[in-house]
Amino acid sequence: MNFSSKLLEDAVGEFSKLPGVGQKTALRLVLHLLNKEQEEVEHFGNAIIRLRKEIKHCNICHNISDHNVCEICTGNKRDKEIICVVEDTRDVMAVENTSQYFGVYHVLGGLISPMDGIGPSDLFIDSLVQRVATTPVKEVILALSATMEGDTTLFYLYKRLKDFQIPITTIARGIAFGGELEYADEITLGRSIVTRVPYETSIIR
Amino acid sequence: MNFSSKLLEDAVGEFSKLPGVGQKTALRLVLHLLNKEQEEVEHFGNAIIRLRKEIKHCNICHNISDHNVCEICTGNKRDKEIICVVEDTRDVMAVENTSQYFGVYHVLGGLISPMDGIGPSDLFIDSLVQRVATTPVKEVILALSATMEGDTTLFYLYKRLKDFQIPITTIARGIAFGGELEYADEITLGRSIVTRVPYETSIIR
Repeated sequence: MNFSSKLLEDAVGEFSKLPGVGQKTALRLVLHLLNKEQEEVEHFGNAIIRLRKEIKHCNICHNISDHNVCEICTGNKRDKEIICVVEDTRDVMAVENTSQYFGVYHVLGGLISPMDGIGPSDLFIDSLVQRVATTPVKEVILALSATMEGDTTLFYLYKRLKDFQIPITTIARGIAFGGELEYADEITLGRSIVTRVPYETSIIR
Repeated sequence: MNFSSKLLEDAVGEFSKLPGVGQKTALRLVLHLLNKEQEEVEHFGNAIIRLRKEIKHCNICHNISDHNVCEICTGNKRDKEIICVVEDTRDVMAVENTSQYFGVYHVLGGLISPMDGIGPSDLFIDSLVQRVATTPVKEVILALSATMEGDTTLFYLYKRLKDFQIPITTIARGIAFGGELEYADEITLGRSIVTRVPYETSIIR
């Protein structure tokens, strides 16, 4: 692209480094910002800079937080003895949005993926084992994606945790609510028949 | 969404104000930035702030520029007597990318659009007329989109400029290179037959 301004080129270059943003989209976003009030644009820029500079990770669960210990880990309505293990902060948000879970979390910071060179030592797995070993825990829920990496991580975590003699559970797999049987893949449908549940427990309360 | 951090919420909020960016995309972009080096993120934020603060518009053609007069208007290889009138800076880039045009530009800053409350006085039309009246001009090329607003603006500009007795041209409309006749709309195809050109002039040199 032929930019008429170095400043413009710079800003477009920065935006197009973002995932899924090409040069044309970047240009559209930058021109949109140019039409905004200077104050608004400064707020935008500063929000990004401050985020990166001041953000903390919870010392206990490793979730993104403004404090050294996050609000969930300090919340007095949360059951600290149930730990839900998730991949990243997006999964914490997803579970929180359901309003169905009142325990605490443990954010791994990724999944084991030999293809991407991510091994157990790159994730917060030792600190999870430490947590289970040193604090009273009555259940560990493994809420990981149903992918190859998720399953690998699941299996590894199970191996590391099984000797503690506490219940280790995973979230239920099956046909989604609103899902039609004829479009379900055969593995999901097959497992959902094998792991069928009594009708009473399937009702949403 | 349940954010575990005010800083995170702020940054996601700012990103999701951008056109075409929803909350989920905003979150993905922000988490991507969180994984970057602090220096890189600061550069990103500052590029945006500086852009809005320091950007100028060329005093002659109103294109975005780092200087009071843009590089095209000061370029000594450009024919200052041919003015290409375009809607915005994106169109300047598009024409520049063709490497087929060596005149100068005039950026209107939009198109006449009564539906959006944009009238001739909101655009740099008076300054175009002024330019034509006070500097030697041998051709005005109207390179506007082939939309309702583009045609309205075209007609208005033609009315304002026709008394200066200089050639006023518009860019050619027709079937795009690589375009198949059977998929062309009838108006374009019809006009392209009516405004047919000698074979020799249709060859790309």
